[in-house]
Amino acid sequence: MISFESDYTTGAHPKILQRLMETNLEAASGYGTDVYCEKARNKIRKACGCPNADIYFLAGGTQTNAVVISSMLQNYEGVIAAETGHIHVHEAGAIEHTGHKVLALPEYQGKIKADELKRYLQGFYEDESQEHMVYPGMVYLSYPTEYGTLYKKEELEEIAGICREYKIPLFLDGARLGYGLMSRERDMELSDIARICDVFYIGGTKVGALCGEAVVFPQNNAPAHFFTMIKQNGALLAKGRLLGIQFDTLFTDGLYLEISEYAIEMAEQLKKVLKEKECSFYLESPTNQQFIILENSRMEKLKQHIIFSFWEKADDTHTVVRLVTSWSTRLEEIERLRELL
Amino acid sequence: MISFESDYTTGAHPKILQRLMETNLEAASGYGTDVYCEKARNKIRKACGCPNADIYFLAGGTQTNAVVISSMLQNYEGVIAAETGHIHVHEAGAIEHTGHKVLALPEYQGKIKADELKRYLQGFYEDESQEHMVYPGMVYLSYPTEYGTLYKKEELEEIAGICREYKIPLFLDGARLGYGLMSRERDMELSDIARICDVFYIGGTKVGALCGEAVVFPQNNAPAHFFTMIKQNGALLAKGRLLGIQFDTLFTDGLYLEISEYAIEMAEQLKKVLKEKECSFYLESPTNQQFIILENSRMEKLKQHIIFSFWEKADDTHTVVRLVTSWSTRLEEIERLRELL
Amino acid sequence: MISFESDYTTGAHPKILQRLMETNLEAASGYGTDVYCEKARNKIRKACGCPNADIYFLAGGTQTNAVVISSMLQNYEGVIAAETGHIHVHEAGAIEHTGHKVLALPEYQGKIKADELKRYLQGFYEDESQEHMVYPGMVYLSYPTEYGTLYKKEELEEIAGICREYKIPLFLDGARLGYGLMSRERDMELSDIARICDVFYIGGTKVGALCGEAVVFPQNNAPAHFFTMIKQNGALLAKGRLLGIQFDTLFTDGLYLEISEYAIEMAEQLKKVLKEKECSFYLESPTNQQFIILENSRMEKLKQHIIFSFWEKADDTHTVVRLVTSWSTRLEEIERLRELL
Amino acid sequence: MISFESDYTTGAHPKILQRLMETNLEAASGYGTDVYCEKARNKIRKACGCPNADIYFLAGGTQTNAVVISSMLQNYEGVIAAETGHIHVHEAGAIEHTGHKVLALPEYQGKIKADELKRYLQGFYEDESQEHMVYPGMVYLSYPTEYGTLYKKEELEEIAGICREYKIPLFLDGARLGYGLMSRERDMELSDIARICDVFYIGGTKVGALCGEAVVFPQNNAPAHFFTMIKQNGALLAKGRLLGIQFDTLFTDGLYLEISEYAIEMAEQLKKVLKEKECSFYLESPTNQQFIILENSRMEKLKQHIIFSFWEKADDTHTVVRLVTSWSTRLEEIERLRELL
Repeated sequence: MISFESDYTTGAHPKILQRLMETNLEAASGYGTDVYCEKARNKIRKACGCPNADIYFLAGGTQTNAVVISSMLQNYEGVIAAETGHIHVHEAGAIEHTGHKVLALPEYQGKIKADELKRYLQGFYEDESQEHMVYPGMVYLSYPTEYGTLYKKEELEEIAGICREYKIPLFLDGARLGYGLMSRERDMELSDIARICDVFYIGGTKVGALCGEAVVFPQNNAPAHFFTMIKQNGALLAKGRLLGIQFDTLFTDGLYLEISEYAIEMAEQLKKVLKEKECSFYLESPTNQQFIILENSRMEKLKQHIIFSFWEKADDTHTVVRLVTSWSTRLEEIERLRELL
Repeated sequence: MISFESDYTTGAHPKILQRLMETNLEAASGYGTDVYCEKARNKIRKACGCPNADIYFLAGGTQTNAVVISSMLQNYEGVIAAETGHIHVHEAGAIEHTGHKVLALPEYQGKIKADELKRYLQGFYEDESQEHMVYPGMVYLSYPTEYGTLYKKEELEEIAGICREYKIPLFLDGARLGYGLMSRERDMELSDIARICDVFYIGGTKVGALCGEAVVFPQNNAPAHFFTMIKQNGALLAKGRLLGIQFDTLFTDGLYLEISEYAIEMAEQLKKVLKEKECSFYLESPTNQQFIILENSRMEKLKQHIIFSFWEKADDTHTVVRLVTSWSTRLEEIERLRELL
Repeated sequence: MISFESDYTTGAHPKILQRLMETNLEAASGYGTDVYCEKARNKIRKACGCPNADIYFLAGGTQTNAVVISSMLQNYEGVIAAETGHIHVHEAGAIEHTGHKVLALPEYQGKIKADELKRYLQGFYEDESQEHMVYPGMVYLSYPTEYGTLYKKEELEEIAGICREYKIPLFLDGARLGYGLMSRERDMELSDIARICDVFYIGGTKVGALCGEAVVFPQNNAPAHFFTMIKQNGALLAKGRLLGIQFDTLFTDGLYLEISEYAIEMAEQLKKVLKEKECSFYLESPTNQQFIILENSRMEKLKQHIIFSFWEKADDTHTVVRLVTSWSTRLEEIERLRELL
Repeated sequence: MISFESDYTTGAHPKILQRLMETNLEAASGYGTDVYCEKARNKIRKACGCPNADIYFLAGGTQTNAVVISSMLQNYEGVIAAETGHIHVHEAGAIEHTGHKVLALPEYQGKIKADELKRYLQGFYEDESQEHMVYPGMVYLSYPTEYGTLYKKEELEEIAGICREYKIPLFLDGARLGYGLMSRERDMELSDIARICDVFYIGGTKVGALCGEAVVFPQNNAPAHFFTMIKQNGALLAKGRLLGIQFDTLFTDGLYLEISEYAIEMAEQLKKVLKEKECSFYLESPTNQQFIILENSRMEKLKQHIIFSFWEKADDTHTVVRLVTSWSTRLEEIERLRELL
């Protein structure tokens, strides 16, 4: 079976495994204090253009979101997100589990609009009963979004400006950051992200690592005792080397972007095939996730040969499905899909 | 520098890395639903003699403790632990972070006493103001304990009997389970643990894996929607295969016990050297952690060549330090220690 | 100044104060175990037609919502509410503070629709990624709603039927229950509420008491150790007598309904005046809260003589305001309002 | 039956009821924004000698402890308390329910020792694994303690000095503050408490009110949005007037201290009788709670005429019981006890 199910179906990029082998017998101190974590931090700082950035490595996206958000919010604050935001829908209530509300804004292909954010914040501070309500304490975005779409630089800067005006941090979930940075429609580099956001993370799990996300506080602005809050949330890996070695490898000789570019190239091939076969697109995604609408019987037939994700019911006879590429997608697989369609 | 700092300083047992390489390109579904997780579950079920056990893989010990404890307690309940229990002292309040109190009992070389547990439970239910207090809802033990010591089978059964009497589950933290199972003073096998406890975990991180703990509910007794609670706690690894492949390897051809036995053998050699050099033992540990009391200036000198853990101040001129062996400890390292002492 | 600001601006109904005086020197045991609480419970059981109901007295609405909801939900569950539901908007995130998500459904004049609830639940259980989402574990309604509107008996029964089908409890927030029960548009009695809902509360604070809400589990179905969870949430009043005496009084000789009926009568008078003066109604409310749209300059003028609540901006020149009646509203006050308009 | 069960068995001091009557029909805004709350705040500020104090009224002790502690701690911090501290033992885990650990120190008749506190804090900051532990973020004391004992001014100042040194606030639980202030062994006034502590509360429930505790942040140092956190914890009373009127009355013409002095006088009479009857005292308490050890059969006989509290088993044939006086204790009741003994 060929799988376009997600970008986390295969193992790690071979260079990562190779480095894990090479370093396996070296003794390293635990919890992210080892030399590989430090090397990785320095390379990421350089790639971000942020020499003073605080950088922490966690194992997965949901825990990263929960730790970052709960450690940066005050008790009386919640986090603003698109109603399709991962934290609002697909993390089993992990944010609420830390005691904070997700304040949902309308979404447009996975994105929020700056003017609606502004109106929301204005309205909140004009409301006479605001003291009985959850204070908006952070804005959460994903880049690319859960629908594969991208904020334009201008949009991101506008949102960041509103955040600054209201003195709340802007947090960018970069679980698939690489695919945004290498999309053909990109207009930002990593250093732009680091300049515009107050905190973000560079996703490893979905971009060629076995696991791992690198949280970046670009301006040396990590909350006090962030390390202890990682531990308290059960998100501190004893063998931190596992994360350090992987990110050190990903940020050596541009591997992170190379992996991302390859997956984008595969996604473009995939789109070409899908268009050629007159598949109907649910939306136009410029990254490695593609959403198409399939007639149900066609979907069932395809399922026998290809693995993909159910996304949602479109109507009684059609379904939205998702196909995803990654570092390990092969051109033959896309060819095979063409034949099957 | 030679390191006896902990059993999580080096990478993974070579066989694990080899299997990660061999399987790297296979597409696998995420979140623990892959074929390797399933294989690993079956092998663990067999090793435990529990054909119906529910088994889940998590990445680390603190998150495992927090997820298991919070998902098995009612809101009004707390968990009983030794006052030196890992959850009481060294997990940054992860249990309280989930809303539950740790109810501390006196410890004796890291162990609680069955009769004191009994007296505590009796006293609680005799107390007329019990409804204003935290209900004891679980007993947490570690095996080996944080001091490397072991409960005898008889002790464990007595504690389990009391738990049954009071209808609360017995949870055994097996972060270093292998070293208990292969200690020369062992009187239990894995199947005994599985028979006596209501839930326990088989530690991977400290027994040769890169990361990973296998939670076992021996009698098909996992709480409803345990999977979702793992997710909610940020403890669900997207590439569950990383855990599945490791535990599949550890439970193939007895590798888990083999690794443990080797580390125990190294610990015995270490003890011999330490005794020969007239080091004073803080307590008698039959597992892979050894605690000795060093005169401070001697400790400082040793530190220049050997890495070990500070444990606690013994008095103004002496310190308790910990030396630990693992799958990667080499006899030469112990020899070198002998020379240095 | 005349106040239509809310139904909790004045003290208690005189009969309540009188009983507090009469009983003041009697020694009573604490925490709701006194004879007045027991008398009140029996009278409420009778009024509800539920001889086995479990009844608990708490001090206020937000704490009651938080205690009831968090004690009836499993960790992995959230509570469904209208997007205008008090718990979603005006309780400062008290539900999320207990770790649970509020799952918002569209509202129609403060009410949810049974068919949308059904569709939501169906959709949830059809979603293949449901295990990564918050399980719907309860339905929360308010009666009357935050907009003064009422569910018809048929609507409530339909919602209850859906809840039973999905095995989740139906919780009715009755902070203003009396006004619903005595509305001219009512088609339910207290016994209907008790028959249809799994848990509800009878609001005292807004219906003539100094404070207090009576939580009713009609079928002897309080969660185990509910008392301790009240305590744990800081919601257990030491002098429980204060609540017992008030509810005993409210449920003696039908005082609760008498108070409610009086306030409804005043609300009808108020509506007549507002209509006569050609005020534009924001919506048609059959209970003691009335919402009208005022031109801003008219509103400002009125503010100098009358206290009412800002509700929300209607547009740049108009505002929605709320006027509320209670046991202490006097006809002269409404007359005075007529003159001012 | 005569009751020495507690200081919250009877209603309110008559002057409080009288004021509730007199003000009953006045419309007042809700949530503590009314004129009586404001008056009470000013009188308390004056009594404390703190013109800038922030003052909030809550309904009961456990909720006050939970709100104050959780709003002043960072996520990674816990609160230090005596192992007999109310928050550690008798609040059903309310502090842990907010996510924070109670860090227990040994107690001596309910008090902690300054030098042990110092040693604990020193030890914590010397511990190399401190980042894996709960940071001590506050010291909680009760005055009088749960055993009726009092800190000397010198002791309190020493503890406060240590807190300042470690930059953590000192919180004094004054649920029975009045009895400490009027004890014959007192060496502090309210203004001393206010000068020495960072936050404390003046208990109303146990000193003549129907309910209510006044939280005082003496130096205008309430946490930002403390109001919203009260609401979020379900601890905001809608009819805040109920608390305002009571505290306004208690702080008019010295009623609070007058009530306290009377109860202390009754406690001294009680002690005289108990001594005369050769009752064995569990400890020497200078406040309104007295602890004596009764032979079990004597206790059973006494129980038929007098209500008191079981405290704990002394041994197989003796029990520690507690007798408490209050504003409503009458000399005849103590005489009657003498006869019965």
